[in-house]
Amino acid sequence: MPLPRTVTLLGATGSIGSSTADLLRRDPARYAVEAVTAHRDAAALARLARELGARFAVVADPAAYSELKSELAGSAIEAAAGAAAIVEAAQRPADWVMAAITGAASLAPTLAAAERGATVALANKECLVCAGALFMRRAAANGATVLPVDSEHNAIFQALSAGRREDIRRIVLTASGGPFRTLPADAIRRVTVEQALKHPTWSMGPKVTIDSATLMNKGLELIEAHHLFALAPEALDVLVHPQSIVHGLVEFRDGSVIAQLGSPDMRIPISHCLAWPVRMGTPAPRLNLTQIASLSFGGAAPTVLNAANEVAVHEFVSGRLGFCGIPALVEATLAAAPRRGATGEPGSVEEALHIDHTARGLAADLLPEIAAMAC
Amino acid sequence: MPLPRTVTLLGATGSIGSSTADLLRRDPARYAVEAVTAHRDAAALARLARELGARFAVVADPAAYSELKSELAGSAIEAAAGAAAIVEAAQRPADWVMAAITGAASLAPTLAAAERGATVALANKECLVCAGALFMRRAAANGATVLPVDSEHNAIFQALSAGRREDIRRIVLTASGGPFRTLPADAIRRVTVEQALKHPTWSMGPKVTIDSATLMNKGLELIEAHHLFALAPEALDVLVHPQSIVHGLVEFRDGSVIAQLGSPDMRIPISHCLAWPVRMGTPAPRLNLTQIASLSFGGAAPTVLNAANEVAVHEFVSGRLGFCGIPALVEATLAAAPRRGATGEPGSVEEALHIDHTARGLAADLLPEIAAMAC
Repeated sequence: MPLPRTVTLLGATGSIGSSTADLLRRDPARYAVEAVTAHRDAAALARLARELGARFAVVADPAAYSELKSELAGSAIEAAAGAAAIVEAAQRPADWVMAAITGAASLAPTLAAAERGATVALANKECLVCAGALFMRRAAANGATVLPVDSEHNAIFQALSAGRREDIRRIVLTASGGPFRTLPADAIRRVTVEQALKHPTWSMGPKVTIDSATLMNKGLELIEAHHLFALAPEALDVLVHPQSIVHGLVEFRDGSVIAQLGSPDMRIPISHCLAWPVRMGTPAPRLNLTQIASLSFGGAAPTVLNAANEVAVHEFVSGRLGFCGIPALVEATLAAAPRRGATGEPGSVEEALHIDHTARGLAADLLPEIAAMAC
Repeated sequence: MPLPRTVTLLGATGSIGSSTADLLRRDPARYAVEAVTAHRDAAALARLARELGARFAVVADPAAYSELKSELAGSAIEAAAGAAAIVEAAQRPADWVMAAITGAASLAPTLAAAERGATVALANKECLVCAGALFMRRAAANGATVLPVDSEHNAIFQALSAGRREDIRRIVLTASGGPFRTLPADAIRRVTVEQALKHPTWSMGPKVTIDSATLMNKGLELIEAHHLFALAPEALDVLVHPQSIVHGLVEFRDGSVIAQLGSPDMRIPISHCLAWPVRMGTPAPRLNLTQIASLSFGGAAPTVLNAANEVAVHEFVSGRLGFCGIPALVEATLAAAPRRGATGEPGSVEEALHIDHTARGLAADLLPEIAAMAC
């Protein structure tokens, strides 16, 4: 790989973006930053752009544009705002793109990076959950390399190097079980937002933390794995492993199981993607070794499920829905979606976004009834 | 790899040899057996040679020759006996050689296979413990591929495929701790042969079972790993893991740890070597995932240690030495060896065998004194 490697960070100010910046800072001679983007935190984005020497900084929210512009005054860093500018940031010629925008908004820019054949470090779930077949097909057709950042998928990706895909018997994603793994069912009903936001092992953004508490996160990850590794649902398993030390396992036909282990520190999988195909030193704590379900996929359901879950988590965090309302709302939305025409697998970004939009509307419609139910 | 693959089994009637034969039987069209050898069990060897369709069968003990000859009467299988014939078996043109002769007797035939550039599945420890630098140097010079059969080293070998050697921080061999891991020190003193021969997790030959009980086995394995993977002692670690599910781990510089796991069934690592670089199906039980030191090496010491330990184990099994006498005799032999001239690293097979012989004599001399000591 030629040095310096040019990199772009989509979602630069979030949890994954900050950890990535942390790694870039360790070896500035090795990386040249092309573009950084954020949702609306113009001050943090401008600070990061200056520090990393980026050429282009974009906020998604047009209302934050003037602040970004003034924060970047006197620098050579170009400023822009809006969804189209985020896509432009992804299209600029960086060798490596961290796709860490959360939510369905990640789809268009991440696809833009994949379509120009970049190496895409995929940290958002939505590209695969909402439009997985489409995304992987376009990435392959354009010679893009997709590297999974999620700790579980990154673990599987690492373990897969020990064998050929014909020799895989199954892959196993581990699940911490979240903060409520040992809670009795009646106590689960009274879970507060504060409790759900406290993950026992990982420090992550609020959406994925809640998804971990409801275990929805693992369902989304199974869908991701199905697309990333082109494996049938029967070859995918989940194992509850509360310590979050073993992140994923691959079982081969001879009975060997290859696992990746590590401290629960996202800088490990991020660094793996950043330095790939070699490895780099990281400040992640060394693992102290002495401490040591099945789903079906297809059609529009994963896209609907993701949208309904985003709505449900948002409502829970806002105090308008109980914890048990999250799965109830997701289930009700999935059941009702076919009646609103959301049935087929999305064949384009537009179709995926349309299904997403339909599902969100449906979830909003179903919300009052679900919220009123005692669970 | 061209089919059928021609294979030779050195030590065909022992535990590893039998497991290898078990795998060959599963797919006879894929393998053509060139030669099989045994120590002195002529009847078992002849049966195996007929069943596998071998061309050449050799017993090490010349006294067993006439029995082998008569057992093979009427077949086209050539019979031979003696150490030179065992070496000849290794020299015959098989693509793949299982080196499963126990003890220092394995050195000459295994080296003969390596020197003609064969793929050598290495199941005996002595080639590496007694003459590791020599063995690996000759194997490399002649283009041989050395595949480790020991479950721990095979695990490391599998895990190493996830990264470059420059990126290795350390490798970790696991140790079950043997049958006496939780025994109080005073009970260890009264350990019987029957107790020491009962390994909690692995079913193996008697020598290695006793070595597991004394933990000497792990010391020998560290020496093996040092040579096999060309790693400094500081990069080698041992972890006590009583379940024998994780067989070995590789820690990379980024904090990722790649481990190989599997049921404690030697057919898994043997099959890995037999099918390498692909994988084959095995009858080994699938892993049930829901159950889930440092030494310094060099000079003649590893060769002396191995010889003294072989003597000590033999004496213990024969009832002439207590369990605590095993480490005591090894320690005393190691301390006394330099005074008998056993200091430098062996540069030839002859030197390695000379050191081995010296150390055995020394251990025998020291035995009465050690056996008389209360421990």
